[in-house]
Amino acid sequence: MERAENSFAYCNLLAAPAPQPEERFAGYPRYNFVGGHNDPARIPIEQLATAATSVLNREGQSLAMYNLGRGSLGYPGLREFVAKKLNKRMQGVLSADDILITSGSSQGLDLVNRLFVSPGDTVLIEEFSYQGAFNKARSLGAKIVGIPLDREGIRIDRLEEILRDLSARGVTPKYIYTIPTVQNPTGTVLSLERRVRLIELSKQFGVPIFEDECYTDLVWNLNPPPTLYGLAPSQVVHIGSFSKSLAPALRIGYAVAGWEILGRLLSMKSDGGTGALDQMIVAEFLTKHFDDHMATMTGSLQRKLEVLTEAVAREFGTTVEIWHPEGGIFAWLQFPDHIDVRTFAAEALAAGVAFNAGPDWSWSTEHGQNFMRLCFALPDEHTIDEGVAELARVCFERTGMPVHGSNQRRQQTAGRKQK
Amino acid sequence: MERAENSFAYCNLLAAPAPQPEERFAGYPRYNFVGGHNDPARIPIEQLATAATSVLNREGQSLAMYNLGRGSLGYPGLREFVAKKLNKRMQGVLSADDILITSGSSQGLDLVNRLFVSPGDTVLIEEFSYQGAFNKARSLGAKIVGIPLDREGIRIDRLEEILRDLSARGVTPKYIYTIPTVQNPTGTVLSLERRVRLIELSKQFGVPIFEDECYTDLVWNLNPPPTLYGLAPSQVVHIGSFSKSLAPALRIGYAVAGWEILGRLLSMKSDGGTGALDQMIVAEFLTKHFDDHMATMTGSLQRKLEVLTEAVAREFGTTVEIWHPEGGIFAWLQFPDHIDVRTFAAEALAAGVAFNAGPDWSWSTEHGQNFMRLCFALPDEHTIDEGVAELARVCFERTGMPVHGSNQRRQQTAGRKQK
Repeated sequence: MERAENSFAYCNLLAAPAPQPEERFAGYPRYNFVGGHNDPARIPIEQLATAATSVLNREGQSLAMYNLGRGSLGYPGLREFVAKKLNKRMQGVLSADDILITSGSSQGLDLVNRLFVSPGDTVLIEEFSYQGAFNKARSLGAKIVGIPLDREGIRIDRLEEILRDLSARGVTPKYIYTIPTVQNPTGTVLSLERRVRLIELSKQFGVPIFEDECYTDLVWNLNPPPTLYGLAPSQVVHIGSFSKSLAPALRIGYAVAGWEILGRLLSMKSDGGTGALDQMIVAEFLTKHFDDHMATMTGSLQRKLEVLTEAVAREFGTTVEIWHPEGGIFAWLQFPDHIDVRTFAAEALAAGVAFNAGPDWSWSTEHGQNFMRLCFALPDEHTIDEGVAELARVCFERTGMPVHGSNQRRQQTAGRKQK
Repeated sequence: MERAENSFAYCNLLAAPAPQPEERFAGYPRYNFVGGHNDPARIPIEQLATAATSVLNREGQSLAMYNLGRGSLGYPGLREFVAKKLNKRMQGVLSADDILITSGSSQGLDLVNRLFVSPGDTVLIEEFSYQGAFNKARSLGAKIVGIPLDREGIRIDRLEEILRDLSARGVTPKYIYTIPTVQNPTGTVLSLERRVRLIELSKQFGVPIFEDECYTDLVWNLNPPPTLYGLAPSQVVHIGSFSKSLAPALRIGYAVAGWEILGRLLSMKSDGGTGALDQMIVAEFLTKHFDDHMATMTGSLQRKLEVLTEAVAREFGTTVEIWHPEGGIFAWLQFPDHIDVRTFAAEALAAGVAFNAGPDWSWSTEHGQNFMRLCFALPDEHTIDEGVAELARVCFERTGMPVHGSNQRRQQTAGRKQK
């Protein structure tokens, strides 16, 4: 038989609407300020190898059974660690059996959306938020309403107006999705006072809170307010992750909720369990090294943020204002109102600079056009510095701004490049 | 704030139809003949630990990036290994870029079903097959038609009739799902001749083949026929797994198809990638030890199958016929036509014996009631022996069969239990 063409003859039989095939991966740009990547230099390689050997020697035989023979909530050692970690901000309400390990918080987002959202439903999401949160709700046919934010997170007054308006029209949103601790992309931490008011509104209007805490272990201030789940377990579905604080190629997240919800998420989690080696090795590592690791991570991230902040100040002067994040791996840059960062996104990419344009991280594609998210964990300090200079050069060429300072530097950069 | 009750206040907001919460895990029975578990004694613990250290030292830094910075098809080292392994039975048609790593073949099954099946569609599945294959298709609203099997796999003549009948009614099934090599649960291997005829029918009626090869590395005869994908790439979507041949707690499967399909499966795989440590360690281990490991596994499985066969012969005499499997981890037991194995399933479980009743592994709940699947990889040889004796005792008490031999032994077993 001759070697057949690698195509498929029956695409006419796909269920409608079928997605388009994904583009083949073409590598990353030189100045990669997008994606939740982390710092390659901060992967604790030796400690992970030691953890692997240790946990395999102790419990390796259990790999022979689905879910390590311990049920589909996930590896008990990991759930116990997560419960202990969360209880510090949840007043001890949790046990390991309240936790479902998910394949990243992505899977948690998928499952919770599928459990709550039918086509035509309304969901409330912070006006700027994780692109995946918008996309996953939208793909299920949800109508999204953006909740206005300020420098302290959700504007409770505006949320109350929205809930009141919807209620007057007979609409009960399926959830209020929030990233209260190091909000993505604005980097804010919601105060305890606002958390308490948010919970009151949730109760008053009968709308659950969907709390995403995937950056919470990377906060600069080590004593952030209690989680919303800890304050009101019966009103909240909580998800979290170690993707950002350890490594995103590991797919280890978790969901926390009463069994009426958690047991249903478990029913819907049809993947035969989350990868056991990821779970076991991460649990073994974190149980021994969590505090040290997070201190190293946040120290390194703060230094990179300083480099980014200085580069932005130097290259953009007063043209750009950084919303200084209270933790995490990204900064939210505010340009003058009349600038639409999308106008120079393609040129920036051609010059090797990738950034997230505000509208992609917004509830509406016509919202946030003068904002940009820059992720700073992956590039080293020198690359951050060069990348911001390159970004300013492209921005100036397209928009005529920044006019002060950066212009001269831009020419210097061009000069260096010609050598 | 006082400690809140761990319940959820807003279950009224769930999307309809919401699944029921899963039951809490309550442990496994003593004689556990269900589930695709493997032999704890055959987990290559030391080699996995060595593999972990080696691959982490070499490539650990890449964990800092989503998908190890190499795109979402999966870890290149694993895809290269899978391509090399598959090419032995695919005439060299594959490259690593034709392979998508999935979180177990479960995820492959989910994705392929979602890509093809809309409510009301018809799919063809072997009359006895993996329960998950039926359930996943059914949950999407598919009508399932069972393809009759004999001791050599799919009955091609009957398949042709079914396709002709459906065609006459204007129905094009979305796929023909088959496990051609060590069929689950019958244990047969489809001959090359039948494979060729199956492909001809697929082409004639315009119905793609959905080939599941998750037991193929555990076949007794080391030279099984070529895969259907290898024979006709444009007509087949192929999935496979290392769950059965290495460890089911690892979630490492793969899908193979032309890019029109593979690129769409990739678009739908919304989990941020399959766990990287599982992928990296499995690749490192298999690249070095695949042949030796599979030889050890199949040797051990064949010994356990002998113990099971002898125990069944001793305890059930001529009452039960085993369809001797050509590989894998389960045997298909055929009881006399008038016996419905479901009538003693609950009593067996109460006595610590779990088995899969035929109707649960069948396209219709009223089909296969005189069959039973016994998985033999997990229990040790002594446990297999005791479990079969216990099963015969319960069967006799309920059905009056087996009357020869086992009756006396059953009483002896009961006597031992009273000591």
